[in-house]
Amino acid sequence: MLKTLKIPEATIMRLSVYSRFLAEADRQGIVTISSGEIAEGVGVSPAQVRKDLAYFGEFGTRGVGYNVKDLYWHIIKILGLNTTWPMVIIGAGNLGTALSMYGGFRERGFKIVGIFDIAPHKIGYRLNGVEIYSMDRLAEIIEREKAQIAIIAVPADQAQIVADELAKTSIRGILNFAPRVINVPDHIEVRNVDLTVNLEILTFNLAFRKNLKAYQEA
Amino acid sequence: MLKTLKIPEATIMRLSVYSRFLAEADRQGIVTISSGEIAEGVGVSPAQVRKDLAYFGEFGTRGVGYNVKDLYWHIIKILGLNTTWPMVIIGAGNLGTALSMYGGFRERGFKIVGIFDIAPHKIGYRLNGVEIYSMDRLAEIIEREKAQIAIIAVPADQAQIVADELAKTSIRGILNFAPRVINVPDHIEVRNVDLTVNLEILTFNLAFRKNLKAYQEA
Repeated sequence: MLKTLKIPEATIMRLSVYSRFLAEADRQGIVTISSGEIAEGVGVSPAQVRKDLAYFGEFGTRGVGYNVKDLYWHIIKILGLNTTWPMVIIGAGNLGTALSMYGGFRERGFKIVGIFDIAPHKIGYRLNGVEIYSMDRLAEIIEREKAQIAIIAVPADQAQIVADELAKTSIRGILNFAPRVINVPDHIEVRNVDLTVNLEILTFNLAFRKNLKAYQEA
Repeated sequence: MLKTLKIPEATIMRLSVYSRFLAEADRQGIVTISSGEIAEGVGVSPAQVRKDLAYFGEFGTRGVGYNVKDLYWHIIKILGLNTTWPMVIIGAGNLGTALSMYGGFRERGFKIVGIFDIAPHKIGYRLNGVEIYSMDRLAEIIEREKAQIAIIAVPADQAQIVADELAKTSIRGILNFAPRVINVPDHIEVRNVDLTVNLEILTFNLAFRKNLKAYQEA
């Protein structure tokens, strides 16, 4: 168990990707799969797949491969997804609304149990069946729904104010979509979602291909 | 130049993060910075910072460190961000609207030049100053605005239809927010944004901490 303390974050991200690939393989009726097939399906090396899985013990049978269903459920359990995670969203603007309707969350066990906003005319309405509450009910609803995760989807200049409010509740993890670093007590983990990073990998590749072409033609 | 063919994607992602950290350091008036300071600021090892930068030649002076402004601009150039990237968004729903208002894009040189939707009542309106066009003007506007990047922000069942339409234009890179794999010709690069991966790193850590506590108390 202590071994998992040293698991790289990139491994966790890849496990998340592997599990989606395995779910798709299972839907297609595939029973066993090799590390090479997983590797090809998700675009990493077979050695990487084996190394990532080895953090969590021995899987699969040499020459036979992995049982798709078993491996899927094992990874789901590792990721803590063999349970439902009640979650709140702070901010009922466009981003909060889009996130409240994002089907991918429910699929993986994330259940939005409340949305919070400061605009009086939004309070009491529902987004995708979930009620919009005023910010002064934040701690009450989080406790009632046993939510441990909060998504911050407010403008940048409101992010720290919201983080401070969340720090007074039983929230333990924050996904921050606001383009601003937030400070929280040590017992809360923050993950910042930066929507531009993916764009910048695209531009690197586009710019590089152009450079390469110029280089080859020179 | 050919060396860059083998640069890991994780390095490009970290360069993007380093550049943001350097921009902030520059705003604070810091002139030189060590790899250790960059490493601490962004949460990786100093060796990783040096290795990432080494892909692109020699920087910095031993014992002195890097010039913040120089390194910032060098990375910006590597990422292809020393220019403006005209970009279109397909889908004027909640996610498309949220993305059209996302300040982080403009900051890094991404300029939204058109938003497309199939709903007749949305056509002609503006989001954050950018016109919403009907889908049948996709190729025309992309050519006129010289857009090379498109963001897909439509429901999952519309994603491939939109991808097929984009494949007929001069678009070279797609950022896909729809939770569905899309197929495009080889000359177009696709990046899928999966909003749940970050949540699953949180749940792994939350589930693991609980397990660790149980383990320590046993």
